[in-house]
Amino acid sequence: MEELQNNYPHVLTFNEIKKAAETIEDGIIHTPLCEAKMTKFMDYNVYLKCENLQYTGSCAERGIRNALIGYGNDIAGHGVIVPSHGNMALAAAYHGVSLGIPVTVVLPENTPPSHAQRCSELGADVVLVGDTLQDSTFYAKKVLRDSHQLLITSDDPYVMAGLGTVGVEIITQLPETDAVIVPVASGALLAGVLIACKKLKCSCLVYGAECSKAPKMMKALQSGGPVNVATFPSLADGLSAAVAGPNAFATIKGRLDRMLVVDEMYISRALISMLECERLVADGAGVCAIAAVMQGLVPELRGKRAVCVVSGGNIDSGRLARTIQRGLGANGRLMRFAVALPDNRSGLEQLAKIIAEESTVLKSLVTEQMWVHSDVATTWANVVVETVNDENAVKFKDRLRDIFPSARFAITDIDEKHKVGVR
Amino acid sequence: MEELQNNYPHVLTFNEIKKAAETIEDGIIHTPLCEAKMTKFMDYNVYLKCENLQYTGSCAERGIRNALIGYGNDIAGHGVIVPSHGNMALAAAYHGVSLGIPVTVVLPENTPPSHAQRCSELGADVVLVGDTLQDSTFYAKKVLRDSHQLLITSDDPYVMAGLGTVGVEIITQLPETDAVIVPVASGALLAGVLIACKKLKCSCLVYGAECSKAPKMMKALQSGGPVNVATFPSLADGLSAAVAGPNAFATIKGRLDRMLVVDEMYISRALISMLECERLVADGAGVCAIAAVMQGLVPELRGKRAVCVVSGGNIDSGRLARTIQRGLGANGRLMRFAVALPDNRSGLEQLAKIIAEESTVLKSLVTEQMWVHSDVATTWANVVVETVNDENAVKFKDRLRDIFPSARFAITDIDEKHKVGVR
Repeated sequence: MEELQNNYPHVLTFNEIKKAAETIEDGIIHTPLCEAKMTKFMDYNVYLKCENLQYTGSCAERGIRNALIGYGNDIAGHGVIVPSHGNMALAAAYHGVSLGIPVTVVLPENTPPSHAQRCSELGADVVLVGDTLQDSTFYAKKVLRDSHQLLITSDDPYVMAGLGTVGVEIITQLPETDAVIVPVASGALLAGVLIACKKLKCSCLVYGAECSKAPKMMKALQSGGPVNVATFPSLADGLSAAVAGPNAFATIKGRLDRMLVVDEMYISRALISMLECERLVADGAGVCAIAAVMQGLVPELRGKRAVCVVSGGNIDSGRLARTIQRGLGANGRLMRFAVALPDNRSGLEQLAKIIAEESTVLKSLVTEQMWVHSDVATTWANVVVETVNDENAVKFKDRLRDIFPSARFAITDIDEKHKVGVR
Repeated sequence: MEELQNNYPHVLTFNEIKKAAETIEDGIIHTPLCEAKMTKFMDYNVYLKCENLQYTGSCAERGIRNALIGYGNDIAGHGVIVPSHGNMALAAAYHGVSLGIPVTVVLPENTPPSHAQRCSELGADVVLVGDTLQDSTFYAKKVLRDSHQLLITSDDPYVMAGLGTVGVEIITQLPETDAVIVPVASGALLAGVLIACKKLKCSCLVYGAECSKAPKMMKALQSGGPVNVATFPSLADGLSAAVAGPNAFATIKGRLDRMLVVDEMYISRALISMLECERLVADGAGVCAIAAVMQGLVPELRGKRAVCVVSGGNIDSGRLARTIQRGLGANGRLMRFAVALPDNRSGLEQLAKIIAEESTVLKSLVTEQMWVHSDVATTWANVVVETVNDENAVKFKDRLRDIFPSARFAITDIDEKHKVGVR
């Protein structure tokens, strides 16, 4: 590794990826590349590279395993320390045990309890510290001075090379690939896939996709180098690094075809499409590439074969349930409104009639008499109904407003005039 | 088909399955057979035959396609009518369009709106009628006298033969299979898989798994023939047929190794394990075989290779979200309790302290002062917290009871002493 450390920032080469592919061959799953079933409703031929089907549910395993084997003797005694949002931690816990290397993972305190639990079950020492990945990384750097552990981050050259094997598999599995879209956290996966795909098929377009809540790679490209960006809570928490990795950036710069910035709303939509159409569980970061297609950010790929890398599927079940419900709300399939009912039986009856006749399904109804500013003969009802589709939702809304002009609806996507790349 | 119709009930033969395999070859997906990741935590080598990854999300496509092609000229003009809970309907809608055959599907009125919508989008005429599959079938039979459509049910010999191709694929994909466990609705899938597997590998054990809320096949085996059983709402609504199919029963009788009856609770557990460990979406019916293993119903298969057929993945998103939340509740990971807080600041503070110190996460807290029977200086709080695991839940409970002896917990699995086949 001497030459790598002397050469900072490190620009990844295809040779490193090729070597990584041999190194990790026996320890990772060659995940399926399958045609997306949602393609039948879209103008794109979308394929999914299902890295969510790795044993610990993400492509991070490829990078971590390559690093653990690559550093070999350097880490045999004291082991490694890995700051992570979850995917790197789970991968390190699993492969550390299988290779007999002690692993400490450092997770932000807001990591879902089930992830921390899983790392611990797999055999890692788990430390919960700080609010962000930067806090965790800072803590890890401080600790390792005494512990003599080796720090592994996603910007590590071995990790980037391991991640690049995703690109090798894509071009091998589908040589006709026209474009690959890759979710971007710190950029390591994008860097690896970019070098692999461009080498194996020079006409292949490569795009990065990141969430608008943490647009660090777009900002780095605009600024000519990694800079810190403000980050906001996002469903794609795996992408919430505040700054691009220096090695990843150096590798990507001048080689990437385009960087895409995806709205949060399309991430929840994509997540639900994955569940409903593909029957696959992916996390918010994992669906970022698909979300970019759904948002209509790549019109030039209409009719072409676009591979979306589904980088991971580690979403906490509780969060998944909440996401589905919010997603149904955002799509207008769950609709929330408040309506003033006169205090006589016909008020509720009229409401019930509209609900029944429009084939919507009542989900909840809570009445409020105490804190109401309207007249005392009125009861406010807070109602949630499930609708069949957008059309049904709009019709229901119109009809309700005819009878109850004071009805107030919670804002949903269908009110906004977003254009979706879906027929 | 003459010989079939004259020979009632019809006992399925391997030749019919072989012919079906050739007939449907080009129109269905050869779904993956993969090692279950949850196997690492169990004493069994469980494999999953992922029929949830068919285009419309279930193995019903195999049966329906074989019937639509097999009946050929009989249905070219008037088309077919298919009463269904969902999977058969979706399969018929999809393959009907692809083969140019008009399809009417009859669904019970409580079918999730998204399923009916999907059938309609795929091009089928959709009729919603009655409360149960029996009502839908009764309606379909009445209508077709005038419409001259052909009725296709799951007990159709062509359908059974098509479903049997699942068994052929299992033995081809994993010749070392020791046992196959198959979810049982009316029994057609079990009949097909049974005949195929026993023919191709006579030592292969074949089990059926059905839900205790509709144990029609167990009852039929005990009674020597199909009889109606009382059915209750279940997460595995796809299995809620009240009576075994006569053809399926005649095929299964005397050949089946064992019938397993699974508790509802293990179906929701299995569904969550599929999401969390396998990153696959399956419906309640689809996880019935896995649930049987988790419930410890097949101890004789410890250490052996057991293939669980994941028959389908058509679960409505809203229902999926609810199931996850109930499942988390059943597993003790969401815990609900009511506690009497004295009306002074220390009451809430003590509660908050226990929640924080035990690393549980507060999900909701609603206070109630009006309808309380205890003294007026007390506020009841209804609380939901998320716990890390069973151990954490038990510890939290003990500690809360020490401070608040009147605390009342909603009943969860961990209170019951069920034995699970999980280490």
